Amino acid sequence: MKVAKFGGSSVANASQIKKVVDIVLADKDRRIVVVSAPGKRLKEDTKVTDLLITLAETIISGKDGKLELKIIIERFKNIIDELALSHELLEEMQNDILNRIAEDKSLPTKFIDGVKALGEDLSAKVIAAYINSIGVKAKYVNPKDAGLLLSEEFGNAAVLEKSYANLAKLKDETALVIFPGFFGYTEKGDVVTFPRGGSDITGAILAKAVNAEVYENFTDVDGVFAAAPNIVDNPKLIDEFTYREMRELSYGGFNVLHAEALQPVYEANIPVHILNTNNPSAKGTRIVANRNKNINPVVGVSGEADFSCLYVSKYLMNREVGFGRKLLEIIEDENIPYQHAPSGIDNISVIVRNSAITEEKEKRIYERVRDELNVDNIYFEHGLALIMLVGEGMQQCVGVSARAMHSMEKCNINIEMLNQGISEVSIMIGVKDDDLNRAIKSIYKSFFEEQI
Amino acid sequence: MKVAKFGGSSVANASQIKKVVDIVLADKDRRIVVVSAPGKRLKEDTKVTDLLITLAETIISGKDGKLELKIIIERFKNIIDELALSHELLEEMQNDILNRIAEDKSLPTKFIDGVKALGEDLSAKVIAAYINSIGVKAKYVNPKDAGLLLSEEFGNAAVLEKSYANLAKLKDETALVIFPGFFGYTEKGDVVTFPRGGSDITGAILAKAVNAEVYENFTDVDGVFAAAPNIVDNPKLIDEFTYREMRELSYGGFNVLHAEALQPVYEANIPVHILNTNNPSAKGTRIVANRNKNINPVVGVSGEADFSCLYVSKYLMNREVGFGRKLLEIIEDENIPYQHAPSGIDNISVIVRNSAITEEKEKRIYERVRDELNVDNIYFEHGLALIMLVGEGMQQCVGVSARAMHSMEKCNINIEMLNQGISEVSIMIGVKDDDLNRAIKSIYKSFFEEQI
Repeated sequence: MKVAKFGGSSVANASQIKKVVDIVLADKDRRIVVVSAPGKRLKEDTKVTDLLITLAETIISGKDGKLELKIIIERFKNIIDELALSHELLEEMQNDILNRIAEDKSLPTKFIDGVKALGEDLSAKVIAAYINSIGVKAKYVNPKDAGLLLSEEFGNAAVLEKSYANLAKLKDETALVIFPGFFGYTEKGDVVTFPRGGSDITGAILAKAVNAEVYENFTDVDGVFAAAPNIVDNPKLIDEFTYREMRELSYGGFNVLHAEALQPVYEANIPVHILNTNNPSAKGTRIVANRNKNINPVVGVSGEADFSCLYVSKYLMNREVGFGRKLLEIIEDENIPYQHAPSGIDNISVIVRNSAITEEKEKRIYERVRDELNVDNIYFEHGLALIMLVGEGMQQCVGVSARAMHSMEKCNINIEMLNQGISEVSIMIGVKDDDLNRAIKSIYKSFFEEQI
Repeated sequence: MKVAKFGGSSVANASQIKKVVDIVLADKDRRIVVVSAPGKRLKEDTKVTDLLITLAETIISGKDGKLELKIIIERFKNIIDELALSHELLEEMQNDILNRIAEDKSLPTKFIDGVKALGEDLSAKVIAAYINSIGVKAKYVNPKDAGLLLSEEFGNAAVLEKSYANLAKLKDETALVIFPGFFGYTEKGDVVTFPRGGSDITGAILAKAVNAEVYENFTDVDGVFAAAPNIVDNPKLIDEFTYREMRELSYGGFNVLHAEALQPVYEANIPVHILNTNNPSAKGTRIVANRNKNINPVVGVSGEADFSCLYVSKYLMNREVGFGRKLLEIIEDENIPYQHAPSGIDNISVIVRNSAITEEKEKRIYERVRDELNVDNIYFEHGLALIMLVGEGMQQCVGVSARAMHSMEKCNINIEMLNQGISEVSIMIGVKDDDLNRAIKSIYKSFFEEQI
């Protein structure tokens, strides 16, 4: 059994929905389909979810929202007309919206969650109706009926463990299940949504619940590339990589799927297959627990600018048990997550995102480190970029580091930092912000274009 | 004003002492001389300090120690005879020993400290007498009279801050000061010794107290080599390196001087000059605060085996503020100092010395990390060696890492870990124990023997 999730652009209009249905019906193992709300049809278009949020906010602000409502209904009317579905369905959907916007507005986040979840909900109803109209038995399944229970955190919900037993029953459903993504219900019965992009989470939860053989995630790209296409021309597609590799690559432009979204399938050891609705014959990219390390020892290179580094040095630092821990504690007290902490004998560099620090935080850290740790030297260095060179086979392969360093040397790029732990599937290379794109290009070239 | 310290082999017998005196008198700025106890004359010989410890322990065990005493007195008699000094001095020294071994034995560590400090004390008396005998005014200075006050930690004392003001008065001494190393006095007036090798500490304290222009440390080697001579044939001598470089090199075979011993001169920004008593015209090695980074961007490579690595991984680790801190806290609770902690996005490797861990400690850490941090994966990897490639100019020099990696690739040595922080003067490279010597040889060769 496969769980297939289709993103917003895959269900943006009738012709896209027909592609989705063709894909679903082409494989009888695709028994559970999770759908997003209709996304953009063209670049200038507005996603249905954004239209719904605007509608909800307009109503909260005291206006009637008629214009906003009309645009949304028009959007669904187009889809229904082009799919030759009955106007009864359109009326039913219109009532869904009217009922929802009539609900209690005393807690705005709760009200907004209810309204914005309609995009996925109506999308699923339309698609189920269309599949039935072409003679295949499909069933819209409401998350409440299926028992998808979430924490009461509006706009940022997490799945409750008991949901899995409820959802496991979907295995026995004879009709094709069409399940709206993005939302579930609190134990009190209120609609509540996942963080943005949450349809991926719904798909992963269902895949885990029914113990799917694969979680297919249909997007509008052919898969994950070995380097960001806006830096490297026509980068190679990655056929298969591991969850670990995906995580290490997760800097800069590699966030095809949110790592948090995949946690349920990661835990259940279910592979993810990223596919393209618009090019379903493309091989796509598989995310798996383990892979053959001899094929493609290095799978990709990613990078991101805008990091800073706190540098601290103290004579005989490494004789002080607890020094590193105390330093990290001071950083933790400012609620700053750190990325890496490479160290020498008498110094530590702690790398943080620029977005995580402020001038005030820097000042407080500076003072505490100086006063409490009695260091010789402390400063923040800004303008750093991190590059991750990633591959499960790297540890077994003599010369990967040499190759990466050499490619950067040829381009006269200075290495500010280096970090590779034992059994790690990545090398972190720190460079100046300005050198980031050149460095990625040179590393990509040496691993993916030159003969190894 | 220069402070010159001479090690045990430099004062092992009369001919060595004559070399010392020649060296001291050759430079009128050498005003303060710190001396060790007579060391080994030949490889099979026993150091006077070890003879004194045996004497003290014999007496504590209830025996009379007459044989041990005789050997020690014989040793000093030889020196006095060869230096043509009076037997009055020998009698005075004999009385010093007899008085000391007659002291209270209720606290053995205190008694042993008193006896073992005699080696340096008598050595200083002999040398002062000899210099006077050849017509130069020299003065044996007792640490008690000079005010060298130490903490009451027998065998492991630390200097008390007030000593510096006392010792500063040595600047005004018109005679050549001959000062015994290794010991001082508690505030109660008891003899107390530094940790072993403590004459270096005495020298550094005096250099700081009188604000010497240089702290000359005379040994029996020409200086510090760019690699360990037992691994690399005829390694290059290092002319000059910084305190930071010395610290980074302090693994494996580079402990010419204890870093702790140099803390006083490090704080006072006083250069150290390592010289050879047996080859005083050799340039030696200078340890300085700053040096020209363009000369020898890389100064040396050191390495040491017998490390272990704790590897921990957890999906989405880097989103957890405080994860690294909590891990280091668990390690700190076992009182284990860690060497480095390179990290990936979802994993950390913590490198520790084998000598710092036990099976029980490993087991407790394993259980706590698993239970408290709920990790996906944890294990200890043994049999690791760390290599430090060190140089102040490294950061400015594109290609240092590439060169090091490349030299190891050529020898087919796998790199297990890599760690280089910002502004660091070193790259840490982790390899398997078995590859250590080959790796050091190949790195040495590529930086010091091949054309750069």
